[in-house]
Amino acid sequence: MTSNPTPAHFAKAGPRIREFIVTPIAVVDPPLLNAAGLHAPYALRTILELITDDGISGISEIPGNRSTDEALEAAGKLLVGRDVFQLSEIRQVLTQNFGKETAAERGLTPWDQRKLVHIFSAVEVACLDIIGKVVGRPVVDLLGGRMRDRVPFAAYLFYKYKGAGGPLAFGTDPAATGWAAARQAEALTPAGIVAQAEAMCREFGFQSIKLKGGVFEPQQEVDAMFALREAFGPDVPLRIDPNAIWTLETALNYGKQLEPILEYLEDPVRGQENMATVRKALKTPLATNMCTTSFEDIPNSIALGSEDIILSDHHFWGGLRSSMTLAGICETFGRGLSMHSNSHLGISLAAMVHLGAALPQLTYALDTHYPWQSDEVITAGRFRFEEGSVAVPEGPGLGVELDREALAALHRNYLACGLTKRDDEIEMQKVQPGWRFQAVRW
Amino acid sequence: MTSNPTPAHFAKAGPRIREFIVTPIAVVDPPLLNAAGLHAPYALRTILELITDDGISGISEIPGNRSTDEALEAAGKLLVGRDVFQLSEIRQVLTQNFGKETAAERGLTPWDQRKLVHIFSAVEVACLDIIGKVVGRPVVDLLGGRMRDRVPFAAYLFYKYKGAGGPLAFGTDPAATGWAAARQAEALTPAGIVAQAEAMCREFGFQSIKLKGGVFEPQQEVDAMFALREAFGPDVPLRIDPNAIWTLETALNYGKQLEPILEYLEDPVRGQENMATVRKALKTPLATNMCTTSFEDIPNSIALGSEDIILSDHHFWGGLRSSMTLAGICETFGRGLSMHSNSHLGISLAAMVHLGAALPQLTYALDTHYPWQSDEVITAGRFRFEEGSVAVPEGPGLGVELDREALAALHRNYLACGLTKRDDEIEMQKVQPGWRFQAVRW
Repeated sequence: MTSNPTPAHFAKAGPRIREFIVTPIAVVDPPLLNAAGLHAPYALRTILELITDDGISGISEIPGNRSTDEALEAAGKLLVGRDVFQLSEIRQVLTQNFGKETAAERGLTPWDQRKLVHIFSAVEVACLDIIGKVVGRPVVDLLGGRMRDRVPFAAYLFYKYKGAGGPLAFGTDPAATGWAAARQAEALTPAGIVAQAEAMCREFGFQSIKLKGGVFEPQQEVDAMFALREAFGPDVPLRIDPNAIWTLETALNYGKQLEPILEYLEDPVRGQENMATVRKALKTPLATNMCTTSFEDIPNSIALGSEDIILSDHHFWGGLRSSMTLAGICETFGRGLSMHSNSHLGISLAAMVHLGAALPQLTYALDTHYPWQSDEVITAGRFRFEEGSVAVPEGPGLGVELDREALAALHRNYLACGLTKRDDEIEMQKVQPGWRFQAVRW
Repeated sequence: MTSNPTPAHFAKAGPRIREFIVTPIAVVDPPLLNAAGLHAPYALRTILELITDDGISGISEIPGNRSTDEALEAAGKLLVGRDVFQLSEIRQVLTQNFGKETAAERGLTPWDQRKLVHIFSAVEVACLDIIGKVVGRPVVDLLGGRMRDRVPFAAYLFYKYKGAGGPLAFGTDPAATGWAAARQAEALTPAGIVAQAEAMCREFGFQSIKLKGGVFEPQQEVDAMFALREAFGPDVPLRIDPNAIWTLETALNYGKQLEPILEYLEDPVRGQENMATVRKALKTPLATNMCTTSFEDIPNSIALGSEDIILSDHHFWGGLRSSMTLAGICETFGRGLSMHSNSHLGISLAAMVHLGAALPQLTYALDTHYPWQSDEVITAGRFRFEEGSVAVPEGPGLGVELDREALAALHRNYLACGLTKRDDEIEMQKVQPGWRFQAVRW
């Protein structure tokens, strides 16, 4: 009735890492404004490809930074020869060699600057891609299986200068139409933000909207939120993210104004204590990717009650399996979970979609910068959104494959652009000489 | 250089459950004493076998109880036809149909009486066994990979009446030697406990020792602990488990006495508040499998600081993947994790060993009743312990296979013995008429 021979493919160890290939790339990025300054004409990403002793390739994508790339290269020397299934051991090796980083090393910027979480995330996702291919299952099935076939994302609006980024820098392509035209348009006023939202939602079908705030004086950004409410009505959930540069008083004042129209308020203030104070004062749920950003931060978050929703990011939380653990913690403590993003391409998006499909609870549309990028590094080309959602890629592993010509071209961009790390303050100073980042501005 | 075709074995879904076979068994169990009374001559277990549409068998073992068996049969009707990789969906289906149980439904006994966690654990472990066979990897590699090849267990001492259990009931086999003789010997005094410990450690090589307390007046049990310390010296960690039947005052008094010699004190008192009070008063770490027994209990455990170590049990925490999530929670909040057991055979032991090998941190030897059992239901026969540890089974999945003749014989035991659930109070009354379980006794 049953047949349980030891299968021919059973061996004492899984496939081993034979090659560990780190490729920094630069991706065209428009002049988006945020609390830390201005996006450069290129966003840096790093592509990791692992190749096993039996020739299976696994890939991943993380935020680009020369110092992280160097650490990733060093990690490769420690990991060649290791079994891709031994993820806990790989993490232990990396932790022993790169040390546990403190929350302080994360930095004050909206993006995380710790090395170990980036490195482990890169390796873990590429290993899961390989495991999925070995097993003949999509990555979502390695995370407990799919709870949904399509993963919803939110429109991610930015104040921006006119321009498309990349070689055009602040110029624009006059032939562009539709979203490609809106993407290069200026958006510095409530009306500009509404126009951007309308173009983006028309193109991608998003059903929730987030504005990256922290750029202008708070009342102007609050006005933009009310303009969005006016344009989209009460059925489209709205969020604003001032990236923690409001004072406590500002957050309380403007938070109260926004209370009737927000789905959640993201990082109004800096630090768990301040977040807890705002949370007690407002009816609006608070979300964070800046005050509770690692497992080390969670005990104090729970003790203080600093937020309702953690905006996870598998690049910063140590990969997809750790993100599932975080989901278990959030469920246990009655917290919501959604996702943060940075400018990214389709390998990161594929990983986010597999994770999003696996999460037992998913009550908020995820963040993604993807509409702002136009490049791609996978053979299938750019992902399609339907009604704001992305379908879980078909096929084993991540379900996406490296486009080697595109990779080479984007690597040439990297070499040519001269950027080695993200520094939005320097970019902003090119436009507003003397501009300085302030951890708390208003 | 690389070869990434969609593999021939990739399909849109994984193997589906075709058969769902629930077999209750009764296993010879000696007359062990505990706070709830006396073990019956047989311990009940339930064996689940899942067979997929392509004929792969996966197995698991849970504590036996007619009412759980009936629920498991009902669960089977919901799960036939489902993909074994879709574990989160399977949990959702079971939760929707059996409802979330409250911590109160766990009951006051040392063992957990909730249905859903048992059912999901049974299904999840059998599915992981199948997935491991499909993938050609041991279950430990589905949990992040092995952090150790051998998993350490502790000697689990019991006060007991003379007797071997099973058909011999309170009689003994005069031909028995070594541990088989010690297993049927009476142990009601400190000297008897030391003799039991010596025989058990000689046979299995255990390097930590736990006494199941809560049977006698506290001073007698404390005396037994000091007798063990005298016999084994300071290098063998010692633990005692009064199963929460001490008063707060008793726990504080005897806890103080025991402070110099205990590795940890397990469940001295009932309830998280009382545990937190004891924890603050004593230097000895506290462990629990009675006051924090499910994810719902964790927020209050963290808020109160009710224990240092959670004694997990994959049968009660919803399987192996949930136990890994629990490990992540414990690591995040600086709690230790070890394992609880009930009387069990080799399928449960195999699952415990795979989980024990996967845990990133393992600082305490795990509990097991296995030395007290003599039956087995797997083809390889009884597991061997070396220096108190069990090696991760070789082969894919759990690495153990059902012995169908043994299963049939143990099922005949079940039918013949007439037991339908564990009730240590009734067994105790056969020896001490009128004896009653008390939630708090001393």
